[in-house]
Amino acid sequence: MSKYQRPIRLGMVGGGNDAFIGAVHRIAARIDGQYHLIAGALSSTPEKAQASGKALGLKEDRTYDDFKAMAIREARLKDGIEAVAIVTPNHMHMAAAREFLKRGIHVICDKPLTSNLADARTMAQAVEKSKALFILTHNYTGYPLIRQMRDMVTNGDLGEVRIVQVEYSQDWLTEAQPEDNKQAGWRTDPKRAGAGGSTGDIGTHAFNLACFVTGLTPKSLCADLQSFVDGRQVDDNAHVMLRFVEGARGMLWCSQVAPGNENALRLRIYGSKGGIEWDQENPNVMRYTPFGKPTELRTRAGAGFAGQPEHLVRTPGGHPEGYLEGFANIYAEAAIAIRDTQSERSAKSETLLPGLQEGLMGMKFIDACVRSSTRDAAWISLT
Amino acid sequence: MSKYQRPIRLGMVGGGNDAFIGAVHRIAARIDGQYHLIAGALSSTPEKAQASGKALGLKEDRTYDDFKAMAIREARLKDGIEAVAIVTPNHMHMAAAREFLKRGIHVICDKPLTSNLADARTMAQAVEKSKALFILTHNYTGYPLIRQMRDMVTNGDLGEVRIVQVEYSQDWLTEAQPEDNKQAGWRTDPKRAGAGGSTGDIGTHAFNLACFVTGLTPKSLCADLQSFVDGRQVDDNAHVMLRFVEGARGMLWCSQVAPGNENALRLRIYGSKGGIEWDQENPNVMRYTPFGKPTELRTRAGAGFAGQPEHLVRTPGGHPEGYLEGFANIYAEAAIAIRDTQSERSAKSETLLPGLQEGLMGMKFIDACVRSSTRDAAWISLT
Amino acid sequence: MSKYQRPIRLGMVGGGNDAFIGAVHRIAARIDGQYHLIAGALSSTPEKAQASGKALGLKEDRTYDDFKAMAIREARLKDGIEAVAIVTPNHMHMAAAREFLKRGIHVICDKPLTSNLADARTMAQAVEKSKALFILTHNYTGYPLIRQMRDMVTNGDLGEVRIVQVEYSQDWLTEAQPEDNKQAGWRTDPKRAGAGGSTGDIGTHAFNLACFVTGLTPKSLCADLQSFVDGRQVDDNAHVMLRFVEGARGMLWCSQVAPGNENALRLRIYGSKGGIEWDQENPNVMRYTPFGKPTELRTRAGAGFAGQPEHLVRTPGGHPEGYLEGFANIYAEAAIAIRDTQSERSAKSETLLPGLQEGLMGMKFIDACVRSSTRDAAWISLT
Amino acid sequence: MSKYQRPIRLGMVGGGNDAFIGAVHRIAARIDGQYHLIAGALSSTPEKAQASGKALGLKEDRTYDDFKAMAIREARLKDGIEAVAIVTPNHMHMAAAREFLKRGIHVICDKPLTSNLADARTMAQAVEKSKALFILTHNYTGYPLIRQMRDMVTNGDLGEVRIVQVEYSQDWLTEAQPEDNKQAGWRTDPKRAGAGGSTGDIGTHAFNLACFVTGLTPKSLCADLQSFVDGRQVDDNAHVMLRFVEGARGMLWCSQVAPGNENALRLRIYGSKGGIEWDQENPNVMRYTPFGKPTELRTRAGAGFAGQPEHLVRTPGGHPEGYLEGFANIYAEAAIAIRDTQSERSAKSETLLPGLQEGLMGMKFIDACVRSSTRDAAWISLT
Repeated sequence: MSKYQRPIRLGMVGGGNDAFIGAVHRIAARIDGQYHLIAGALSSTPEKAQASGKALGLKEDRTYDDFKAMAIREARLKDGIEAVAIVTPNHMHMAAAREFLKRGIHVICDKPLTSNLADARTMAQAVEKSKALFILTHNYTGYPLIRQMRDMVTNGDLGEVRIVQVEYSQDWLTEAQPEDNKQAGWRTDPKRAGAGGSTGDIGTHAFNLACFVTGLTPKSLCADLQSFVDGRQVDDNAHVMLRFVEGARGMLWCSQVAPGNENALRLRIYGSKGGIEWDQENPNVMRYTPFGKPTELRTRAGAGFAGQPEHLVRTPGGHPEGYLEGFANIYAEAAIAIRDTQSERSAKSETLLPGLQEGLMGMKFIDACVRSSTRDAAWISLT
Repeated sequence: MSKYQRPIRLGMVGGGNDAFIGAVHRIAARIDGQYHLIAGALSSTPEKAQASGKALGLKEDRTYDDFKAMAIREARLKDGIEAVAIVTPNHMHMAAAREFLKRGIHVICDKPLTSNLADARTMAQAVEKSKALFILTHNYTGYPLIRQMRDMVTNGDLGEVRIVQVEYSQDWLTEAQPEDNKQAGWRTDPKRAGAGGSTGDIGTHAFNLACFVTGLTPKSLCADLQSFVDGRQVDDNAHVMLRFVEGARGMLWCSQVAPGNENALRLRIYGSKGGIEWDQENPNVMRYTPFGKPTELRTRAGAGFAGQPEHLVRTPGGHPEGYLEGFANIYAEAAIAIRDTQSERSAKSETLLPGLQEGLMGMKFIDACVRSSTRDAAWISLT
Repeated sequence: MSKYQRPIRLGMVGGGNDAFIGAVHRIAARIDGQYHLIAGALSSTPEKAQASGKALGLKEDRTYDDFKAMAIREARLKDGIEAVAIVTPNHMHMAAAREFLKRGIHVICDKPLTSNLADARTMAQAVEKSKALFILTHNYTGYPLIRQMRDMVTNGDLGEVRIVQVEYSQDWLTEAQPEDNKQAGWRTDPKRAGAGGSTGDIGTHAFNLACFVTGLTPKSLCADLQSFVDGRQVDDNAHVMLRFVEGARGMLWCSQVAPGNENALRLRIYGSKGGIEWDQENPNVMRYTPFGKPTELRTRAGAGFAGQPEHLVRTPGGHPEGYLEGFANIYAEAAIAIRDTQSERSAKSETLLPGLQEGLMGMKFIDACVRSSTRDAAWISLT
Repeated sequence: MSKYQRPIRLGMVGGGNDAFIGAVHRIAARIDGQYHLIAGALSSTPEKAQASGKALGLKEDRTYDDFKAMAIREARLKDGIEAVAIVTPNHMHMAAAREFLKRGIHVICDKPLTSNLADARTMAQAVEKSKALFILTHNYTGYPLIRQMRDMVTNGDLGEVRIVQVEYSQDWLTEAQPEDNKQAGWRTDPKRAGAGGSTGDIGTHAFNLACFVTGLTPKSLCADLQSFVDGRQVDDNAHVMLRFVEGARGMLWCSQVAPGNENALRLRIYGSKGGIEWDQENPNVMRYTPFGKPTELRTRAGAGFAGQPEHLVRTPGGHPEGYLEGFANIYAEAAIAIRDTQSERSAKSETLLPGLQEGLMGMKFIDACVRSSTRDAAWISLT
């Protein structure tokens, strides 16, 4: 049994009433009891910020109308927040993160990094200057079997990786979104979401996951983007071909207009010695085929599951863990990393937290997709 | 956004170091932020009780060596626990529950109810005398699609239910258990687990789930129990035929010696107008066939998902929720029920919490299986 | 490449206009080019017999109104049929088979053996007296992966077999059948089908398959039969518990009133060292779990597929073979066996053709199910 | 019951000892009893041609060493062949087909059309000049559910088609092929197979199937081809992006080096109103999602299966039909078309047989893939 560790004091920017991802972050922070949410600037509308804070049980004097005010005051308090979760629409990530980073408060930021490359560069400077940690919630890297797949590639179980097939398809934007759908609203607004629509919202996840598992370095891509729904200002479907420095090639498809797909993030990797396949919608099983032998079903925490750190696995095989537990694994590793910064010992724990570099690569991905598509799918360098 | 409600003060009996189900109860209580664990008698070994309390961050004076001492003192404290989770081996459920019930502290108890029928009767008296709630964690009833299946049966989508096929198979006891396996140890010891082995440990879940979804009244059963592993004192495999008062018939198979099955609880129900099928290991999708029409895949929170209370569903379709979220749904409903008892308004919220009746029916099931098998699979009444 | 062998001259009894299984037999006989259909008594209605013969291209003088006339004449012809396929409703199997057997013409008979035990005994005498072969088309034993499963059990890959779970469910009789449905008509008429409804029509397949794969000897069964549809004279759903001489136990479920099930024959076998699972509706893959190791997907003719005789496998892995190819495998082995009888060499080829013994065991199964159910699911001996 | 029709007299070029696809054509021709194989030039090696003919039961005087001699003689015989199946390696298709076409003998030719564009043009002239039919065995179009998918698109069930995702992956060429593997030998030899490796062998199937089902007109493609195995002279993996004249976009992946994939041809199509998904390895079920409603499983010949011509469906739902039956459906339609040419009535039956146009489009596909890849994945017109 592990030693008790006091919960980390957490704040949140964004995530008020009606927000989807804010609630997810809060559950992820709660599952392992490693965080205590005590402050928030939950909305840019003061009234809503207050109401949302109240509904979450925040004290009145820890409920802010404005993230800057929050950063300033919390940094001064003796029991101020140690970390902040930023869960606003993309265009506000940078400004918010900067205020906390400059005051030494750790930032756990939703992806993509920002809504444009200029902001990303500013964000990079802020991160580099700060002693605080910057963690980007590419949550799908938190799935235990994704970790196992990464280990298998590293161990050479697949031989030399040749082919990467990754896709992330949804259907919720198949038709023009109703005006009162807040999610659809900002996610299809280039001012708030950025130039990439499906590429930014979900394509970055797919791209990140493929890189995370294979460990390959992206070299270039060419992309054919579409906006199938009349009047939509950002892509809702994207076909992308990938080249990696090491010689592997890939295809990436992301779509928000593919009826029958809820949240179908799928990864398949083939090498000279074997192949692996995984589907986020049933994340407790993966397929592994050593070339020339029968396909094996490897289950989370079942037979053939490689020893993963205790914080990634809460139940035995056959007890399905899902999206929230995978997300919680990012928070669990963040807690480890945050405590390392507070510890006197110099050795750092090994974690696989996505951060600034992954965020910048995601921004490059979106930018390259948009530029390639504008130039009739010309190859654009990612290095 | 719902109104903030102060977390319920929770205690725990059992669930110390190495315990599986205790940790599950704690996560389930944490996911929605509705409980605060503040006291525990986590082990019957004082040293371990202290160490476990410390590891969980309990205050020293709220860490008890003994559940009775805990019940007495917590009942007197102004900020004493309002509810207690009992997660000991089966044979200790009754004695522990009784102490809290008699002092008006709500009990959330792991299943099965007790280890024998005599204890079950005593437990029944304790529950009946108490004003406190008694909740039994038949956690699989918390899955959102299980709730939907129940609603579909009630709505008549299947017509008259004719056939119930339910099974719960595992493989972890395929071979004689190592002596140092604490889980296998008490779960196969008739003194601690009760006369039923697989029937008590998992058969009761299968039986409860079938009754919960169909709403049928069990009439009788006949059973053929086996202990395939040499020296095992309780059943590790059971074949059961069921009859229901309303005319439906069923088969129930539970096994802990079926290689390739991790935690394979599966339910299939067929009626005069349609059929439904569900598998716990991929619990976010069910099959529904209206007779003569194509089979539909109904997903949790996806198209065709009937409106469930908000507290049962945390994420949109395609974001898999699993075992822990299903378990958390029992805790979420328990919180609603507990607050109802504390509220001045007389109307009670509608919940579907399993309690004493379900516990007694589970004990009857185990007893009937054992007696039937002893009598060469004679029919035993359950009414 | 194998040596050319002249097609065997084949006749058919039954299988005229509208018949389902007759057409299946004809395709099965054609697939490998080992038979030539040249004669038939395709209906007991002369007009229909003639029309059916014409539609199949039979010569007029080889088209008979009556199976007895056919047997007499074909036996005398120099180029008379060497084998006959009997594909009538069950109650006519015996009388027809007897005429051909007594004249030395090989019989390939659809299952079940007969419609009652008395006929079965007469059939047994006829088979024993005849030098001709008697082959019963328990066609599901022809699937290549079923053969592999059998080999795996024989090889000890599962260790000692403990548990047999077999089921065969359909839904086409969920409602009262329309009067003009010829298939439903005779299959639910005890005079023509026999006392068993679903037990005779499909339960015998499930029972046979379980015995074929495991090699176990059935000892006894108890059964709970139902006729859920008003006015139905035979069982349409059956719950059966099985005991085998070697100590294994089993459950068998067959149903024709389970909406959503088309032809769902599924077999699962668990032993002390491993488990296997197979589903007829996707027959090109099976699951094999060596205890404590990951589950493997073994595909027909894919990696891990054990060398099967050439006549059972026509295409490489990934090229799905199905029901008709499995059925054709029975015909392919029958051709080998028939040619053995015509050969001068004394050594016989090894085949696994179902015959009289399997037929008798099937009749015992039906009879025991009916008797057990009448006696409130008492155990009935099968030895 | 349909009227009897005399079997069509069939010849075969190629398909001798060890050939895979020749045996498949023969089974496909036999399944429905519509053809009688009576002549062959089964190998270009005289000795092997004779041996192969003998093994198939061909008469000696109908066994030829040379397809030209066969064409000349058979055309003169009163009972000469009416149709010929050409199942040689690709580079011999044209020369063989020309000889039969010019003599009015119908040609059923394996795909791709030829090994190069020049031959394809010559073939086109030969077809145009001939009164005989030219049928190309794009056999996957014969699957009943593929036909249903095509009908659904035509009926507007998907709305306007937007996205086409098609892939065909195998793993048998993951490593350098052994020298004695005849299949791998010619299929990776540009002289015999043509410039396209995986693109020609399987990519053409995927491309054809996507066009067949959607009815869309290909406009252009860009391709990134790889030869991952050292020394391989043709592509073994190809990533392709597609544009269609009507506005839809697509991705096509074909690979013969993807471990764990046996013959994984998968098609997914999404439109403004719905989506469909199908997998050749389990071809008896497809997924159909009307946007905003639950996904339906449509099975071959099951509920929701649209009335298909009788010759495409041999068994009820749940009785899996596979690769050979799908292939046989091409032969079944070819028989209908051939008999139409022999009939006096002017009305032609409606069939969906692939022919010259499909063959030319396939050649364009291969050529465009190779040229695009050479030019760094530039878009190449297909119109």
